[in-house]
Amino acid sequence: MTSQPPREAVVELLGMLGYGELLAFERMAADARLAPDLRRRAVLCEMAAAEIGNYRRLVARLGELGADPEQAMRPFAEPLQAYHDRTEPRDWLEALTKAYVGDGVADDFTREVAAFLGDRDRELVREVLHDSRYAEFAASEIRSAIGADPKLANRLSIWARRLVGEGISQAQWVAAARPALAVLVVTGSGDQEGVQTLLKRLTQAHGARMTSVGLNN
Amino acid sequence: MTSQPPREAVVELLGMLGYGELLAFERMAADARLAPDLRRRAVLCEMAAAEIGNYRRLVARLGELGADPEQAMRPFAEPLQAYHDRTEPRDWLEALTKAYVGDGVADDFTREVAAFLGDRDRELVREVLHDSRYAEFAASEIRSAIGADPKLANRLSIWARRLVGEGISQAQWVAAARPALAVLVVTGSGDQEGVQTLLKRLTQAHGARMTSVGLNN
Repeated sequence: MTSQPPREAVVELLGMLGYGELLAFERMAADARLAPDLRRRAVLCEMAAAEIGNYRRLVARLGELGADPEQAMRPFAEPLQAYHDRTEPRDWLEALTKAYVGDGVADDFTREVAAFLGDRDRELVREVLHDSRYAEFAASEIRSAIGADPKLANRLSIWARRLVGEGISQAQWVAAARPALAVLVVTGSGDQEGVQTLLKRLTQAHGARMTSVGLNN
Repeated sequence: MTSQPPREAVVELLGMLGYGELLAFERMAADARLAPDLRRRAVLCEMAAAEIGNYRRLVARLGELGADPEQAMRPFAEPLQAYHDRTEPRDWLEALTKAYVGDGVADDFTREVAAFLGDRDRELVREVLHDSRYAEFAASEIRSAIGADPKLANRLSIWARRLVGEGISQAQWVAAARPALAVLVVTGSGDQEGVQTLLKRLTQAHGARMTSVGLNN
């Protein structure tokens, strides 16, 4: 994309990511108590803590763009909170599956949209994506749990589908309520067909992630 | 103190601090939701996130000392959890008072005990003490809230006394259950009189902290 995207869309995207980081921090910190031992509990706490550094960077950039960070984030409080409220993990493996599957799709989407931004914001957004070490930790935990008890695959696959379903439902809400962001995705992708291709890529990557840990799409 | 303290006492101290960091992280992350706005909520999340880096450093040092970090921390899970369970803040100002008053006393105590350690552990322990920026943030919030509504001073003073009372009660439990740590404090202070002097210094510093934000001892 050669032309710079409109400032309004950039502010909306950074506001959404910023609030997302804050909520992800709080949720992971709470989910850490589900860990079966201290080592694992600490890893989830570390995953959580990393989100806060990213939150700060997004808020700082919103300030540089002349936006009020709180105002930029507020419209996303409701859908993001609703997603988390409706997908509260009941145990450690559900918490990890949420971090692995939910954050995986969100990161893929964010990476795609980042391509439509100017250099500076594209760099920032790519840098605040989740560290792949954490996805690997979650994947290895899920994989070995399913290895030890194959019946788990069914329950966690249903859970993963619910996560994606809730995610899509809130994403649709956001797309309808924040036209600047929706327009950025459409113009960035080229046209409606481009959007379909983007969604297909997201779906395929999600499927590959599921398969790689032994979950069924 | 010229002689090195016994390894067992050092492991107990680092274990206690490590588990304390982990719990403090989880509690502050939960308390952040009590914040009146996003900016303040994020500051508490940042305060929380800082604890996790410290946790990691303490665990690494326990490993270097040949201790199993989980085993070193486990004995402190019950008293530390009990302290937090009995002092769950009901609102933002109670949460900040807890961070300011409770962490203040704990940090002073830790700083005193650090003086009894060898160079390396003394440095580490002093470095993982709370950043004074956070105490200043909490102090300024409490001070301005009391300035705006002087009636608050009474309620928050009662709360602060309860925090200290619960803290002392758990500390006595620890002292009885972990003799190596108790002996370190006594031999480090010189004798029982030295311990009394140490407790007096802690009490005075606590009193000064209370007064400086408008709370009554």
